Amino acid sequence: MAIVDLFTKQLKVINAGIPGFKDTLDAVRTPSVHLSWKPPADVSAESLNRVRGAAEAIAAANREAIARLFAAKPVLVGLKRAREIIPGMTEDTILHAGPPIEWERMCGPMRGAIVGALLYEGRAADAESAEALAASGRIRYAPCHEHATVGPMAGIVSPSMPVFIIRNDAGSNLAFTTMNEGLGKVLRYGAFGPDVIERLRWMEAVLYPVLRKAVESLGAIDLKGIIAQALHMGDEVHNRNRAATSLLYRALAPAVIRTASKPDDAAAALEFINRNDHFFLNLSMASCKATLDPLEGIPNCSIVTVMARNGTDFGIRVSGTGPAWFTGPADIPDALYFAGFSKADANPDIGDSAITETGGLGGFAIAAAPAIVQFVGGHAGDALRYTTDMYEITAGENPAFQIPSMDFRGAPSGIDLVKVIRKNLTPFIDTGVAHRNPGVGQIGAGVLSAPIMPFIRAFESFSKTLAQPESSFQRGMRT
Amino acid sequence: MAIVDLFTKQLKVINAGIPGFKDTLDAVRTPSVHLSWKPPADVSAESLNRVRGAAEAIAAANREAIARLFAAKPVLVGLKRAREIIPGMTEDTILHAGPPIEWERMCGPMRGAIVGALLYEGRAADAESAEALAASGRIRYAPCHEHATVGPMAGIVSPSMPVFIIRNDAGSNLAFTTMNEGLGKVLRYGAFGPDVIERLRWMEAVLYPVLRKAVESLGAIDLKGIIAQALHMGDEVHNRNRAATSLLYRALAPAVIRTASKPDDAAAALEFINRNDHFFLNLSMASCKATLDPLEGIPNCSIVTVMARNGTDFGIRVSGTGPAWFTGPADIPDALYFAGFSKADANPDIGDSAITETGGLGGFAIAAAPAIVQFVGGHAGDALRYTTDMYEITAGENPAFQIPSMDFRGAPSGIDLVKVIRKNLTPFIDTGVAHRNPGVGQIGAGVLSAPIMPFIRAFESFSKTLAQPESSFQRGMRT
Repeated sequence: MAIVDLFTKQLKVINAGIPGFKDTLDAVRTPSVHLSWKPPADVSAESLNRVRGAAEAIAAANREAIARLFAAKPVLVGLKRAREIIPGMTEDTILHAGPPIEWERMCGPMRGAIVGALLYEGRAADAESAEALAASGRIRYAPCHEHATVGPMAGIVSPSMPVFIIRNDAGSNLAFTTMNEGLGKVLRYGAFGPDVIERLRWMEAVLYPVLRKAVESLGAIDLKGIIAQALHMGDEVHNRNRAATSLLYRALAPAVIRTASKPDDAAAALEFINRNDHFFLNLSMASCKATLDPLEGIPNCSIVTVMARNGTDFGIRVSGTGPAWFTGPADIPDALYFAGFSKADANPDIGDSAITETGGLGGFAIAAAPAIVQFVGGHAGDALRYTTDMYEITAGENPAFQIPSMDFRGAPSGIDLVKVIRKNLTPFIDTGVAHRNPGVGQIGAGVLSAPIMPFIRAFESFSKTLAQPESSFQRGMRT
Repeated sequence: MAIVDLFTKQLKVINAGIPGFKDTLDAVRTPSVHLSWKPPADVSAESLNRVRGAAEAIAAANREAIARLFAAKPVLVGLKRAREIIPGMTEDTILHAGPPIEWERMCGPMRGAIVGALLYEGRAADAESAEALAASGRIRYAPCHEHATVGPMAGIVSPSMPVFIIRNDAGSNLAFTTMNEGLGKVLRYGAFGPDVIERLRWMEAVLYPVLRKAVESLGAIDLKGIIAQALHMGDEVHNRNRAATSLLYRALAPAVIRTASKPDDAAAALEFINRNDHFFLNLSMASCKATLDPLEGIPNCSIVTVMARNGTDFGIRVSGTGPAWFTGPADIPDALYFAGFSKADANPDIGDSAITETGGLGGFAIAAAPAIVQFVGGHAGDALRYTTDMYEITAGENPAFQIPSMDFRGAPSGIDLVKVIRKNLTPFIDTGVAHRNPGVGQIGAGVLSAPIMPFIRAFESFSKTLAQPESSFQRGMRT
């Protein structure tokens, strides 16, 4: 092309880098497209080199991880009290969402939920003494994720709480989660008023025995099958669980009737579930936990096994680095706020529910649930774009979890830390929003992208675990 | 453009009419598009002129019809036996799907279902004597649609059968429909074996009283709300009813428990519904019937109020021509056939279920249910195209019934006979396929476009009902 052509021919311009150049072209009506490309995230050249050198080993390890992810078959097999079944649970243990954190650094809603749990357990007579006990050092705090457990929002699990037991039939590992309390003023959003405690006691006294007997009589309920169907029915099983809750309800109801000691209890239990389209959320989360735990600790594997937030820090774990947490500050989500609330009231992102995105659901499958995007003012096309982006940072497409509007393409699954860093593109997450103060509850629902910091830290550590191929110099030494 | 340009410039070709010309251009790789245009259907110039002359009166009448269609609020209010509630039902009446037809012209599955109904009623001891009675002239056959009733496939309703009662809360009209029996060998597909009759008797003895009491205790169940939600959950409530069945089930189950005399009956009733994802179909049909009946008989109105098939004829009714039927031969659907069956075994299209398309659901809303298209070998894009086409022949977009993948656009609703004729484009319909012989049952599910003949006949009659505006000659005579 001669230089004069620049001024006489019609140009087809691709803009890379700073978007501002495209703005100028738009202003003079020269057609151009902006290349969706960013430089890699800010990691060391050394770690990038190590990862490049181990590419084959990483690819092989990731194939193994994806095989385990796709083979998983989570089923609901029962309910017990937390103290009876969760490994390492003591009378003084309280489990919480996200990476490890001490009382002093905990956010408002997590503190509120702990106060509520201590009241529920009868460990304190009022909120003030509960708070004193919580801060006394006599309570042992630990992440749910370190006890094969997941909890939405504050994610508080105390010893008396009934929990669902989910078994991964592809192996033998178990996962646990509480029963979902419903919306509004609930413990997981940091509320601890008398109505919250009363509801928790009713769930323990009525809902728990009814569901325990029903699940026992059914033997096992196929949660993977329910999730697969729900994706065909407008759910992504994180911020939308209406279909999955309905399908679970259909499976449970006849067994509830046949096994409940009192018809009134059976009806009350079903009415409680029927009022809460999010009842399935905890089971969707525990299904993903049961699915992902067997991926932990595969040498050279760059697949993310946990993303979780405690309302202060956003933490991840990666297969190849085992149980180590990599954290960074949690962001405040873009959200639709309930009347009377704004972003200024919002707590930073909180909860173990990002385990759904880690498992290829939630925000990763949001194209299956465009109603969520509409809820925060977007369009169906935005949902398609979010899911399409997630194929860029994942290692597989789950054949069991299909997205109808994408011609039943498998959901993007298995977040590859290396791709996140190389593309500088972090996971897209659906979430609820809690008020930053204890005792208030939910104030909205929204979406956000994970912060890059935990991934940068994980990448640096991960790169040091890699077995490097011999250099030609080393090979030369041996001959 | 000089003639030489045709051979030197790059052409942008629009092909109209015969598609074969585009095939030639495709072969020589000249880009072209085919204009989706057909000449109007083969109606008389006289009737076209009359309709053109009355355009304003038709538009006003159609606005009124669409207002009634959108205002409708169908709710489930109870169950009774057909003989107790359906107007004009006698002990010798058997209602059937589609336009009027005598025994002699009835197709195999309709005859089979009538034999089954007479066995179920105890009017005959075996199939042979039932058939003799059916042909004897002692049984009075009438279309469901002439008794505010709809039935899927053969649509047989006999006096003892329990029926759902649907009320349109926007007015006061009622509609009726049987309870869905499930899939496979069932009466509505023409089967009449002992298992079929036994199931019908169980439905009468157990399911009917359980559901009657539950619905009575609830007062009313909002069917329009369930349908609106189901469209957000992958149903089009004709060939896919999984979500709607689930939502109905959620609403019913606690009431079933509280009101059933025996817990075993309650459990058995819920298990029966849980096994049949099409349980809601009859209610979706009756909702549309209750919605459309108030549109009948608006002078000058060209909105279609009924499309129905009896397995021999395809019949329609139009608002402006009142209760008159316009018919033509029913076609055989394109379908996915069950193993061992082919199109050669298929009965022509049958059933009142096209009332869902008449109401703007089913095939008209198929973009909400791409799984159906996939089922017959198509792609999600085909479902979008089918629904997009239906906007061409409808008068409104229902704000209550939204299609998520089209950014929650309202479903195309209110088939305008004039547009069908002008565009020569007939309604797209989802359907089940019955074996052509009595006693066999369902052999597949599929899709088809309505035949044009009933619309041509309706158009000719409709045009004669129109009040013509005064001609200038007439106006001159008066001055």
